[in-house]
Amino acid sequence: MAAVETTFAFLYDELEARDATAFVHVGDRFDDDLRYLTRFSGPDRGYAFVFVGGDAILCAPALFERQARREFTGDYVYGPEKFESATPGGRAVEVLDAYDAAGTVLVPQHLPHDAAVRLENAGFSLESTDAVDRERAVKSPEEIERIRRVQRAAEAGMARAETVLARADVAGDVLEVDGARLTTEGLRREVNAVLADRGVDPAGNTVVGAGGACADLHFTGDVPVRPGETVLLDISPRDAFGYYGDLTRTFVVDSDGGWERRAFLAVESAQEAAFEELEAGATANRVHEEAAAEVGAYGFPAGYERDTGFTHGVGHGVGVSLHEAPSLTSDSTLEAGNVVTVEPGVYDAQEGGVRIEDLVVVTEDGFENLTEYPKSLTPEERD
Amino acid sequence: MAAVETTFAFLYDELEARDATAFVHVGDRFDDDLRYLTRFSGPDRGYAFVFVGGDAILCAPALFERQARREFTGDYVYGPEKFESATPGGRAVEVLDAYDAAGTVLVPQHLPHDAAVRLENAGFSLESTDAVDRERAVKSPEEIERIRRVQRAAEAGMARAETVLARADVAGDVLEVDGARLTTEGLRREVNAVLADRGVDPAGNTVVGAGGACADLHFTGDVPVRPGETVLLDISPRDAFGYYGDLTRTFVVDSDGGWERRAFLAVESAQEAAFEELEAGATANRVHEEAAAEVGAYGFPAGYERDTGFTHGVGHGVGVSLHEAPSLTSDSTLEAGNVVTVEPGVYDAQEGGVRIEDLVVVTEDGFENLTEYPKSLTPEERD
Repeated sequence: MAAVETTFAFLYDELEARDATAFVHVGDRFDDDLRYLTRFSGPDRGYAFVFVGGDAILCAPALFERQARREFTGDYVYGPEKFESATPGGRAVEVLDAYDAAGTVLVPQHLPHDAAVRLENAGFSLESTDAVDRERAVKSPEEIERIRRVQRAAEAGMARAETVLARADVAGDVLEVDGARLTTEGLRREVNAVLADRGVDPAGNTVVGAGGACADLHFTGDVPVRPGETVLLDISPRDAFGYYGDLTRTFVVDSDGGWERRAFLAVESAQEAAFEELEAGATANRVHEEAAAEVGAYGFPAGYERDTGFTHGVGHGVGVSLHEAPSLTSDSTLEAGNVVTVEPGVYDAQEGGVRIEDLVVVTEDGFENLTEYPKSLTPEERD
Repeated sequence: MAAVETTFAFLYDELEARDATAFVHVGDRFDDDLRYLTRFSGPDRGYAFVFVGGDAILCAPALFERQARREFTGDYVYGPEKFESATPGGRAVEVLDAYDAAGTVLVPQHLPHDAAVRLENAGFSLESTDAVDRERAVKSPEEIERIRRVQRAAEAGMARAETVLARADVAGDVLEVDGARLTTEGLRREVNAVLADRGVDPAGNTVVGAGGACADLHFTGDVPVRPGETVLLDISPRDAFGYYGDLTRTFVVDSDGGWERRAFLAVESAQEAAFEELEAGATANRVHEEAAAEVGAYGFPAGYERDTGFTHGVGHGVGVSLHEAPSLTSDSTLEAGNVVTVEPGVYDAQEGGVRIEDLVVVTEDGFENLTEYPKSLTPEERD
């Protein structure tokens, strides 16, 4: 499939609009802006990205020049032997000097402080820009294809978990598989092994809640999975290019059809209501408001300050960060190419939690769902 | 097993030594200093850590207060409702004001620039400190136990890969398993599935090189695994608490005993030479120099500037970062409790690459090897 490339026209435009001489960022592969700008997947050491004079330049750390040349989609890779300075901030200054740059340098607001000080000491005036966030929020067809593939892997992981639940035996107040007690950690390992086998990284994001723990939105502990309790799986793997998927389903083995059935209908309806609002030109938080109203129609309250009900926003952008622009609780205007989650949820520390989450791409006249996984509260064998 | 806690006496001492009023850091779970200071495992949003007046305080992002209270080992967790400011830097300022702090605030040098500006605008004078790096470099018994367990998982992944190689059939100039061609990506997926099943995250670090690609130190591509070529596996998973393991072995199926045999003997001897130097009080780069001399005795050159031979340092610290202090090419003095890799390697773009890597803890009179995996160039069935 086509490689994912970053095009730098947006930086050229931003420099012109802001009357700035260059854009600089410094960090490592855990900085998602830098990952996006460079496509460089390692290592965990400081490197610098400089856009100046129409050129995109990567100052690579020692030992990894070969990898940098293989991965960087910009113009030049310079290794440490090119520089006097041992720090990425100092190397960025040397590049700027080589281009006779002067005046304002644009940086992301989270540029490391030591690099900022170096640039300022060299006489540059720093101004922050969110141009990279804005560019990242609108995906190219190649990026959408990456995300679609990661989502397929997330679905394979979900299918394994759902199948395990479908086959589990009720043994008193616990569930058993082949005679062993089923726990959230056991399910997490099953899911993660499937993800790894599909070539994506679990990325420390596989949330498996059971019962009251479902209300703990990033539950990573180990508790028994019990009959009649909600089991919430939120799977967000990352591919080798840095792109995330994001998929949530909730199941109940041996449901008595009470609270969780009403909660499931509420979030299903809320997701449909959100889908109705999704299209280029729509205001993002309108999507959240419609979902919240629908949850309310089923008797569940909504609000961040609450412990029960719909306690979070209905969605967020997904790309080389798991959470990026646009947030569906912001007042931004949706654009074709935004990839967002649609994930209403209802929680109650006594009853449990129900959330369903699809990943979709906004289009000119609606949306395309990148998710193909069925929705049912009762687990079925799918593996 | 015992929870891993951070004790903050070192910050108290550093504030006193530097005549500073507080320590502040801001970031998310991808910032390893913040991960260490807070033990908070998520999410990817801004939170602030403040040490002031003897109290360790976490300003947690919305939605994740419950998780923060579960994981933070300091004194207080404050949610967003406690603050006027919407940014972690602004919240850190509010905490400092509540403690009537004034004067110098110590920060890591990579504090995000926007937080630095907020602190400076509030009248604080910033000075950088490496106190957190120094504290992280010396592991507690609980941390060593974590790392030992991650290393066991890495060994299980290695055993799977070695077993696959041992069972592979030579089919012309490629290897086959059950009739399918064996590739580096296929091996990577086998390893990563075992890691996930053992409850650790592959963390995007599973390097599998074959032939000339072994010289590419972070090779993540997909090439055929061929008989007679070196296959280099470097496995560095991360546990749920953030601790890494690190293990490298090199195998050759159907070796003709030429270059790779000499390279293997060289790195085995170099590792032994490095082990000889390891003890509290030793100068770190002495360990590297002895390993490099031993590699040289086998006719392989050493040097960072080189493309062939021993092209990297012999080791680095491992903890909540895969690469942290002490580096074995630095002039620091080793301390009991340092956990370091010992990983000599020899590379040649034509011949391939051979590296073996163990993870050890420095003790008062030597070292303890946290690695139990055998070393052999010819793969054996171990799964």
